Amino acid sequence: MSRFWSDVVKGLTPYVPGEQPKLANLVKLNTNENPYGPSPRALEAIRAATGESLKLYPDPNAEQLKAAIGKYHGIGAQNVFVGNGSDEVLAHIFLGLLKQSRPILFPDISYSFYPVYCGLYQVDFETIPLANDFSIRLGDYAKPNGGIIFPNPNAPTGCLVPLVEIERLLQSNPDSVVVIDEAYVDFGGESAISLTARYPNLLVVQTLSKSRSLAGLRVGFAVGHVDLIEALERVKNSFNSYPLDRLAIAGAVAAIEDREYFDKTCKAVIATREKLVGDLKALGFEVLPSAANFIFARHPQHDAQESALALRRRSIIVRHFKLPRIEQFLRITVGTDEQCDALVAALKEILGA
Amino acid sequence: MSRFWSDVVKGLTPYVPGEQPKLANLVKLNTNENPYGPSPRALEAIRAATGESLKLYPDPNAEQLKAAIGKYHGIGAQNVFVGNGSDEVLAHIFLGLLKQSRPILFPDISYSFYPVYCGLYQVDFETIPLANDFSIRLGDYAKPNGGIIFPNPNAPTGCLVPLVEIERLLQSNPDSVVVIDEAYVDFGGESAISLTARYPNLLVVQTLSKSRSLAGLRVGFAVGHVDLIEALERVKNSFNSYPLDRLAIAGAVAAIEDREYFDKTCKAVIATREKLVGDLKALGFEVLPSAANFIFARHPQHDAQESALALRRRSIIVRHFKLPRIEQFLRITVGTDEQCDALVAALKEILGA
Repeated sequence: MSRFWSDVVKGLTPYVPGEQPKLANLVKLNTNENPYGPSPRALEAIRAATGESLKLYPDPNAEQLKAAIGKYHGIGAQNVFVGNGSDEVLAHIFLGLLKQSRPILFPDISYSFYPVYCGLYQVDFETIPLANDFSIRLGDYAKPNGGIIFPNPNAPTGCLVPLVEIERLLQSNPDSVVVIDEAYVDFGGESAISLTARYPNLLVVQTLSKSRSLAGLRVGFAVGHVDLIEALERVKNSFNSYPLDRLAIAGAVAAIEDREYFDKTCKAVIATREKLVGDLKALGFEVLPSAANFIFARHPQHDAQESALALRRRSIIVRHFKLPRIEQFLRITVGTDEQCDALVAALKEILGA
Repeated sequence: MSRFWSDVVKGLTPYVPGEQPKLANLVKLNTNENPYGPSPRALEAIRAATGESLKLYPDPNAEQLKAAIGKYHGIGAQNVFVGNGSDEVLAHIFLGLLKQSRPILFPDISYSFYPVYCGLYQVDFETIPLANDFSIRLGDYAKPNGGIIFPNPNAPTGCLVPLVEIERLLQSNPDSVVVIDEAYVDFGGESAISLTARYPNLLVVQTLSKSRSLAGLRVGFAVGHVDLIEALERVKNSFNSYPLDRLAIAGAVAAIEDREYFDKTCKAVIATREKLVGDLKALGFEVLPSAANFIFARHPQHDAQESALALRRRSIIVRHFKLPRIEQFLRITVGTDEQCDALVAALKEILGA
């Protein structure tokens, strides 16, 4: 602590991202990256943008990218906000839309960045416990609130709330903003973007880090009513006029436009997930139903942290959260078939199965 | 305005960046970009990083970049903070170090994003008028304050405060943070980074957008005592873990390492600036002494806004600020010799000289 720090800094508990080890030959199943590379068209577009024009500022409004996202989702470009990864988009949402006099609501087990944003911007919040089966029960959110946010599918559980339940929540909660954080939706969920035209308080957040395999490029976006988008633009233009560089814009546009590659790789991840779930169940794991590119699993006879350490000794990294209710779970990213087979083989050894 | 906006959003007056017109064949002298492209080594490094690895998150700490900056400036990597352009770095500084009980001080004519950050984070501020010759008089900052920030050279004037005066300010003002925003320092100033080892309250901000010609890549950094850097890391890790994408990190490292190209292009810009100043003076302009890659000039007989419009009709864009004290000035980016010659020829016509 330093006497030069603002009071805000003194009170912060920053987010701790999943480890990014700089070792080769690692089976890295800890940060939900896509095992397949980005679309070749995205790489080509980045190469084409790598030249003299980097001396010029990017388009501060990234209009080309907003248009591509709008076209893909059948909405207007004016309904799209883009940012430096969905984490930045979420940060602006917390300050611009969720900082209200009433506390906002989110699940007790969820994306652990939410309470961090609340700390940064002094947003009042209340956590709502997941049901015993670790699902989100939206009926529990029927109370006065300054806003509601949850990932769908939820992280780190992978559990999905059906769209019909989200619509029911929107109908019963018209007076505050509902944010659906769809980082993983392309691996088995149905996007709530289709509801944004009818619900002016609905904001849907997506990222290109997972299903578009561009975690290294940092692009995320939000879709909603123009009034909500304008709030985010105002915050963004009071923070950093150019959050997306020229290469990120070029690569993201091409990735969004390459539907074929996207469909193919999402399907491959889903197929591997289903096989992995079967294999883990055969080893005695309880696996929560996942609509994401990761699974959340616990073994009734084996300590999760010990298993994670034993995997690490075999150069396989998964994520373990030392948190109430979920400390016996492992969160395992769905890798390639080979990576998942290596994981299952290692677990067989570790469990002595 | 929408009932879903937070009070913060309702009160914002966002920054308006210089225009980025999408026309070809424009002589674009409005946003202080470098007329020479980025280092060829930077482009090569970006191309090498454009591949499968973009599926993985970047290093959240950008250690390689911090090390390169540290080596270049003869300081430790732990004294370096990096962000998505110096605008993002400045934003974190306002929230993490300049949000204090006393008002912060900055010049009345200066980077117009400063009051915007204050609005975003509710930072109390007081502006200190420039002297009549438009220089920053640091003696005027000798009063109780929550922090001091100014660009050096100042924008949009281009005027430089000598390092010896900055050191005097640091000696007389040990109890609050002094931020020197050196976006343009490489075009004729001496960096205060050399003072950071001795003054724990000094923070120096630089960018790769100007002298390294990478405005399109969005990389900026701050240098100072580890306590100040830690404040910024805490804010950053409560906002967005990965503000710099893999391509930005790769390109920035190579650009910093290519000293030869950097020296050559900075010298070329300075030479063109000196010629441009002479040409404008010959046309009757009063030109403030510039240590930057732009000049700030007014003509005693010709209205600045009219001149700017007349230039625009000839496809030459410069920046004009409709603000008290400076509304008769044009801010003209130093382009190539050919661009500056085109500007001077156009002004000759416009002024009927």
